[in-house]
Amino acid sequence: MNKWYIESGEQGDIVLSTRIRLARNIDEYPFPAKLTAEGKTEVCEKVRNILLTRKGWNFCYTPMDKFSKSQVISLAERHLISPDFAMQKDGALVLTDDEAISIMLCEEDHIRLQVMMSGLALKEAYSVADTVDNMLSEELNFAFDERIGFLTRCPTNLGTAMRASVMLHLPALTRCGQMSKLASTVSKLGLVIRGAHGEGSAPMGDIYQLSNQITLGISEQEALDNLQSITLQLVAQERAAAKSLMENASEVDKVWRAMGILKNARLLSCDEFMSLSSLVRLGARENIIEIDLKTLNELSYSVQPATINAVEGKDLTAAQRDELRATMVRNAL
Amino acid sequence: MNKWYIESGEQGDIVLSTRIRLARNIDEYPFPAKLTAEGKTEVCEKVRNILLTRKGWNFCYTPMDKFSKSQVISLAERHLISPDFAMQKDGALVLTDDEAISIMLCEEDHIRLQVMMSGLALKEAYSVADTVDNMLSEELNFAFDERIGFLTRCPTNLGTAMRASVMLHLPALTRCGQMSKLASTVSKLGLVIRGAHGEGSAPMGDIYQLSNQITLGISEQEALDNLQSITLQLVAQERAAAKSLMENASEVDKVWRAMGILKNARLLSCDEFMSLSSLVRLGARENIIEIDLKTLNELSYSVQPATINAVEGKDLTAAQRDELRATMVRNAL
Repeated sequence: MNKWYIESGEQGDIVLSTRIRLARNIDEYPFPAKLTAEGKTEVCEKVRNILLTRKGWNFCYTPMDKFSKSQVISLAERHLISPDFAMQKDGALVLTDDEAISIMLCEEDHIRLQVMMSGLALKEAYSVADTVDNMLSEELNFAFDERIGFLTRCPTNLGTAMRASVMLHLPALTRCGQMSKLASTVSKLGLVIRGAHGEGSAPMGDIYQLSNQITLGISEQEALDNLQSITLQLVAQERAAAKSLMENASEVDKVWRAMGILKNARLLSCDEFMSLSSLVRLGARENIIEIDLKTLNELSYSVQPATINAVEGKDLTAAQRDELRATMVRNAL
Repeated sequence: MNKWYIESGEQGDIVLSTRIRLARNIDEYPFPAKLTAEGKTEVCEKVRNILLTRKGWNFCYTPMDKFSKSQVISLAERHLISPDFAMQKDGALVLTDDEAISIMLCEEDHIRLQVMMSGLALKEAYSVADTVDNMLSEELNFAFDERIGFLTRCPTNLGTAMRASVMLHLPALTRCGQMSKLASTVSKLGLVIRGAHGEGSAPMGDIYQLSNQITLGISEQEALDNLQSITLQLVAQERAAAKSLMENASEVDKVWRAMGILKNARLLSCDEFMSLSSLVRLGARENIIEIDLKTLNELSYSVQPATINAVEGKDLTAAQRDELRATMVRNAL
């Protein structure tokens, strides 16, 4: 089955993906930080029994100590688990085979349910998350306060306990130096935008995560509507910036050179791949270069260091990976 | 008719070309520097009458004041005339249509006869130069001293008045930092090696000119034999250095990236073309990249700034040339 991230969804040339994350805790147990090993096992087993008996769902349950080191890092690289969870030996992960739904058990909260979809699909992703949430809440007693909402370990999640986010590819706005202004604008609207890979003004691959900050005193629907509308505004601004950028011959030249290097390099670091493919994606979007965005989507996951190690089934050196990565990219393009 | 430089001659992957230059003066006239305008015209006419009446030769005679500015710079770019001669309004140029033979009239000496051939062809080029020299000497009284040899304006040319040179592409020796040691070695052997384009330790395109320094007290044959033998030694050293360089994955990577940029860039300066094509030529020579060296040979002349202007018949801006150059290179590769 194709992984979810290979597809290119709505506004998929700019909105790479949508993610909905719900945090839930079972009333009878303390938060994982205060929970005994036996308690954690009980929580994991309870959720497992609910999910794996459901017909029509392809959930796969794996205790965290069954993954190899490169497998967990690869899961984190694909945003299926948090970097913290990757370091954990207790807890378990429930995953569908298209990797669209992932459920971390006994991370910061008992249940961290995440749904990912390609493109801009807040409503659709929320609907799936809501369905799974209902499946669980029918049989589990969630920690919930009438006044506050869902109770979570970290107070910033109290209320809806929902974090909705979109991954945006914004190379033109980045190049025009508009990102810090935009970041301050969206923060006034209850959202936060940050580099998806690495900190600083120009994150790797020009990919940003835009997410809601407020979970308290707001409904899920309001939060999603707000995120949807600001996402569409950013998309429109990126399109305008890209159009004016591509009127500059030297920017078009950069796009083509990036393509030339990707198609020819024999050694390619992950960072360089991200920078070059950002330019190529920009060129594809502006009809300068003809290339299927699905190819770039898939590569952006498959060329990550730990994912390469996990697929190869061994710990390659950085130099070996650079060589393999270059071959993968050449073959794909 | 194909220009001489498109062909790839003996050792042509490293020895780009061979040049023989003979300086001659007519006894009855002072050197051009001391010659009146009428005298110069007489000298030019005398030579013209000898050469243009010969059957089987395709000499074309053009007074220097008939060339446009971009035409003369283009001639200098192709090494058919000296940069000084390009600035001159008096004098004339005799050229065969394959541009293999060029004769500057009333440059520093009355007659500067030059024969160029592709690859390593000292004997062949000298033989052609000798034939033309004989044609002229049958009817002209050359300034010649029994003890010294041919008399020339500059004392460094006295004797044979012959300058023989080869253009060598030495990217591997350059990258290994061996050029300054080699330069000092060949100077002890009566030769000089210098960057063909630009000064410094790494000349543009890694192209060097190796030429004889001594014209006095040595026969033409001795000078040619010496140059031939040292050229072959440098070629062997370059081959060995290239072989060991290409065992390094990051050097191979550079070769492919250079090819990728040449095939994709939309803007390309002449300097960058020279650097990148040097790497591609190295890759072709080491069987890493498959490409016809003739294509690179032709491009290295056709993408020069004044040659582009001359072909286009107008003074393009640098930016316009960079765009046109990139298109020429893409189409050729």
